[in-house]
Amino acid sequence: MKYLSQIDSPKDLKKYNIQQLETICSEIREHIVSCCSQNPGHIGASLGAVEIAVALHYVYNTPSDKIVWDVGHQAYAHKILTGRRDSFVNNRKYKGISGFPKISESEYDSFGVGHSSTSISAALGMAVSARINRTGEKVVAVIGDGALTGGLAFEGLNNAGAMHSDILVIVNDNQISIDPNVGALHNYLIKVSTSNFYNKAKNRVWSAIGANRIRSLIQKFMFSTKAAIFKNGSFFESLGFRYFGTIDGNDIEQMVETLNNISRIPGPKVLHVRTLKGKGYAPAEENQVIWHAPGTFDKITGKRTQSSSSSAPRYQDVFGQTITELAKSNPLIVGVTPAMPSGSSLNIMMEAIPERSFDVGIAEQHAVTFSAGLAASGMLPYCNIYSSFMQRAYDNVIHDVAVQNLKVIFCLDRGGLVGEDGATHHGVFDLAYMRCIPAITISAPANETELRNMLYSVQSNQYGITVIRYPRGTGIGTNLDQPYELIPPGKAQLMREGKGIAIIAIGPVVNDALKAAERANKDGADVLIYNMRFLKPLDREALDHAIVKCHTIITVEDGTVVGGLGTAVSEYIADAGLERRIIRLGVPDNFVEQGTVPELKRECGFDEESIYTTIKNVSQTS
Amino acid sequence: MKYLSQIDSPKDLKKYNIQQLETICSEIREHIVSCCSQNPGHIGASLGAVEIAVALHYVYNTPSDKIVWDVGHQAYAHKILTGRRDSFVNNRKYKGISGFPKISESEYDSFGVGHSSTSISAALGMAVSARINRTGEKVVAVIGDGALTGGLAFEGLNNAGAMHSDILVIVNDNQISIDPNVGALHNYLIKVSTSNFYNKAKNRVWSAIGANRIRSLIQKFMFSTKAAIFKNGSFFESLGFRYFGTIDGNDIEQMVETLNNISRIPGPKVLHVRTLKGKGYAPAEENQVIWHAPGTFDKITGKRTQSSSSSAPRYQDVFGQTITELAKSNPLIVGVTPAMPSGSSLNIMMEAIPERSFDVGIAEQHAVTFSAGLAASGMLPYCNIYSSFMQRAYDNVIHDVAVQNLKVIFCLDRGGLVGEDGATHHGVFDLAYMRCIPAITISAPANETELRNMLYSVQSNQYGITVIRYPRGTGIGTNLDQPYELIPPGKAQLMREGKGIAIIAIGPVVNDALKAAERANKDGADVLIYNMRFLKPLDREALDHAIVKCHTIITVEDGTVVGGLGTAVSEYIADAGLERRIIRLGVPDNFVEQGTVPELKRECGFDEESIYTTIKNVSQTS
Repeated sequence: MKYLSQIDSPKDLKKYNIQQLETICSEIREHIVSCCSQNPGHIGASLGAVEIAVALHYVYNTPSDKIVWDVGHQAYAHKILTGRRDSFVNNRKYKGISGFPKISESEYDSFGVGHSSTSISAALGMAVSARINRTGEKVVAVIGDGALTGGLAFEGLNNAGAMHSDILVIVNDNQISIDPNVGALHNYLIKVSTSNFYNKAKNRVWSAIGANRIRSLIQKFMFSTKAAIFKNGSFFESLGFRYFGTIDGNDIEQMVETLNNISRIPGPKVLHVRTLKGKGYAPAEENQVIWHAPGTFDKITGKRTQSSSSSAPRYQDVFGQTITELAKSNPLIVGVTPAMPSGSSLNIMMEAIPERSFDVGIAEQHAVTFSAGLAASGMLPYCNIYSSFMQRAYDNVIHDVAVQNLKVIFCLDRGGLVGEDGATHHGVFDLAYMRCIPAITISAPANETELRNMLYSVQSNQYGITVIRYPRGTGIGTNLDQPYELIPPGKAQLMREGKGIAIIAIGPVVNDALKAAERANKDGADVLIYNMRFLKPLDREALDHAIVKCHTIITVEDGTVVGGLGTAVSEYIADAGLERRIIRLGVPDNFVEQGTVPELKRECGFDEESIYTTIKNVSQTS
Repeated sequence: MKYLSQIDSPKDLKKYNIQQLETICSEIREHIVSCCSQNPGHIGASLGAVEIAVALHYVYNTPSDKIVWDVGHQAYAHKILTGRRDSFVNNRKYKGISGFPKISESEYDSFGVGHSSTSISAALGMAVSARINRTGEKVVAVIGDGALTGGLAFEGLNNAGAMHSDILVIVNDNQISIDPNVGALHNYLIKVSTSNFYNKAKNRVWSAIGANRIRSLIQKFMFSTKAAIFKNGSFFESLGFRYFGTIDGNDIEQMVETLNNISRIPGPKVLHVRTLKGKGYAPAEENQVIWHAPGTFDKITGKRTQSSSSSAPRYQDVFGQTITELAKSNPLIVGVTPAMPSGSSLNIMMEAIPERSFDVGIAEQHAVTFSAGLAASGMLPYCNIYSSFMQRAYDNVIHDVAVQNLKVIFCLDRGGLVGEDGATHHGVFDLAYMRCIPAITISAPANETELRNMLYSVQSNQYGITVIRYPRGTGIGTNLDQPYELIPPGKAQLMREGKGIAIIAIGPVVNDALKAAERANKDGADVLIYNMRFLKPLDREALDHAIVKCHTIITVEDGTVVGGLGTAVSEYIADAGLERRIIRLGVPDNFVEQGTVPELKRECGFDEESIYTTIKNVSQTS
């Protein structure tokens, strides 16, 4: 690293000339590829955005000028340039640096991100603050074309355009999020950028600075072209933004020159740049979906390491295969995903039954209300949303589905601790925020066979609106080649009889609890265990059985202990006015950072070892 | 009612000719004004949308063709035309008909609404279902220009445009929601509609049906006009919709003719109509903000009935006046409302300190993330959102505010049962869904003085992110002319010592509990009462005191009993392993329909009388 080893902050970057910046971009790419080959990360988006990061820190005066990265998967170059070059080897590791920008990590991270489409709103807040306090600070939001389809981004654009704030929105258009982008706005952006030559942009920028008369002349000229109906930026201009673009976002010279010019223009501005996801690393350029987050790999050959940890299928694949199988015999079933065909494995159904499976773009709210509309017309939608992203659609679940009692099946993937993505992505609030909604059944299968059976069972009229929640990663290796079994709603499964101490658990942690109990039983305990399967309705018979036989009840769940299973059991005991000790194991009432799932479960105190210790402590004191 | 009395369903409507339809529109208006003068309703929007409703039911084949009304305030004519002419006198009443479309009420109500911006997504679901099942059913969404600023509406447009579904979106542009609309899209719509003559629309429709070549010629012509930069519908056309408009939405002939033509065109279409809110009733036309929902009035003179029920100020006014007062001496305070300046009384601050108070449009998600951006720059935002609308911004509270620990004060107006707006609008889940979020303080003042003091206290460094939740309506008449008092976070207030039975309450229901206890004490009970003030952190000292002195604890809250105060107390008792009986009074685990607040509190069992009865029952059995 000829230059990069000398760059500890953006101040150092400013010493170099444009030609040297090109070398620096290459060095950053090498560093990203090298680190991520050994320590998995989101390589594709970050490789594409290297020039954006370099140009922004070169032109703007960070950290007093603010850069807000949308989502944050693309911000590795930004991290490397802002004092985290060396700590980048610990990216996404337990106690290491976060995979996303994070206020507490660096003064250069002006806003913490992770979920999509927040950057424009946050940047507008900063721009308004700068105006109120007359600081002269400039604010830039960098947002992908995928994230732009989230309604929140539109709300931000609509408000920023009307406020005439000094804000620059860079649309980083690489036409792919995790999967290829969909939506009308996406089609529109393609048409805009293919109908314009890159070199027009420079003219437009200059005309905007120097002579508005010239600019309007150019625009008049453009109207007469065939592409007029997709006139450059009319979407953004209807929202009160000045539009510049399209330019090559991987050309550092163009980027620096353009930003230099645009940074002097007041008001709301959009700069539309085209970049290549995976840019500069051939395997990543070639297969952008796989190289969004490829795991570890050989950086020379580009060969990805085969994960050898488990032969069991991933929960998401069990979902994808099962829904496809069920939909073949049930013509009412439709599948809905907001931009996660490969992440949810709904792509299996999309290939087999395209007319009944829908990728609606990054638009969780719409995904749910669209599902409600389908249900209102008699279809049976399985709406698959990552648990932490379902927070986006909370009102839609209440207002559009539950209030009207429209039968939608919510498949919450990534429920519980997700590992390396950290605090923004853990799906640990879902059991609590769903439980308070009337008329919803909430289940969390204990293994992949139970997931399969739940997906099957909800078709029955015994079920109404149902949440099926399951985790990231692989199952425990149960036999999937069995006939479907109807699980009655609200029916728990007694895993082991016992007395004195009961474990009431839900989800795959049931298996950890079982192992812990087996160890404790060898030491002389006699632990009773229920796989609750359902948070709502609670199996009162099962609880009564446990209460009669035990003085202490340990609840275990992969979610917050404030409002989930432990809470439901506490309510039940308190309602009955009984004297029982409840120990609620799960995610404590604080945000959990990144790490491997086993590391985090241990930290939270609900891994096998912690459950075992809890049982031992109770046995010794009772 | 010459014709209207004969119309029991849209089938009857189809017997009349255009001239007769004009009379029918007048009769509908008279009926709306007459009913609403005695039974308060949302008169303004519905008066403006009469011709839309009549034309839709005249042209389309409802109920097999589907009309989805966004929000639903404008759907009175629709209700009157679809079998609810006579029951309309009981609009919004307890056990009467809902103020909103509602699936369970009529087969003509294809989708239940209440919150804004859902119609396009729901309609798309229905259109896709019609395509899958080849039913040939047509689907129309009717959405106001205000509701169009909600991100969900954009997500729906973006997806519908890309899917090429057969869907018609009627943009009912009256430039006002409850308060005048704001936002760039609003400015854009004004420019579109003022730069086009109404009669152009007809040409465009015909050209679309008959000859696309002619249509494109007309479009070419239009490009050369000065208004080209705000070319008809370029916003919608960038999203894949065919755009028709602007036409006069209060001209029944134009509406019927246009819909007749458009209904034959396949694909996604927008019809942009201009209407007048309050149309046909002079007082409502003149002051549209007041006549959004004016209460009762004399229909001849237009004089509104003075509400005589309470001399105490409304909670919302206490908020508006207090924040204005505080902001005058604290330059960091900013106020944010999503489209509710008059509903939240933030308009008081907007008048006094316009540079620090923001109406961001119907955009709750953006309101919260914008506030987070302001906080990230060191400001202290008071973000005021109705409790049930805050469900829209749940992820923004977690992901943009709480995860980053950015100090935003959430002022949740309309917390608890709101009365006549019914199930969609009750703010009864907030305590439960907020409680599971780490690092948030949650308070619910017991009266207007305590609200004032809470708004003051949160400025202190003792407070971080804080929710202040208060109800719709007036306070209890406490003295507001007192110096501010610092309320320490998490500190409950002992209202009365006692023993045997404790009442642990939060929010203004504390006052009901106190009255009930006083009555019971006269009968010989000795009830201990705490005004908890805070749901989180819980005052453990207070609870310990109550637990020591009492065998039974009755919790009272104006919110769901699943996950709120009663639950928090149950957790505390269960954690301690104590034998105490808990009785949780509040909103049960089902949706509550419309009615007056006293009617609904009684139904739910937490009005004064119910609390009194609960105490008596406990006294007798213990």
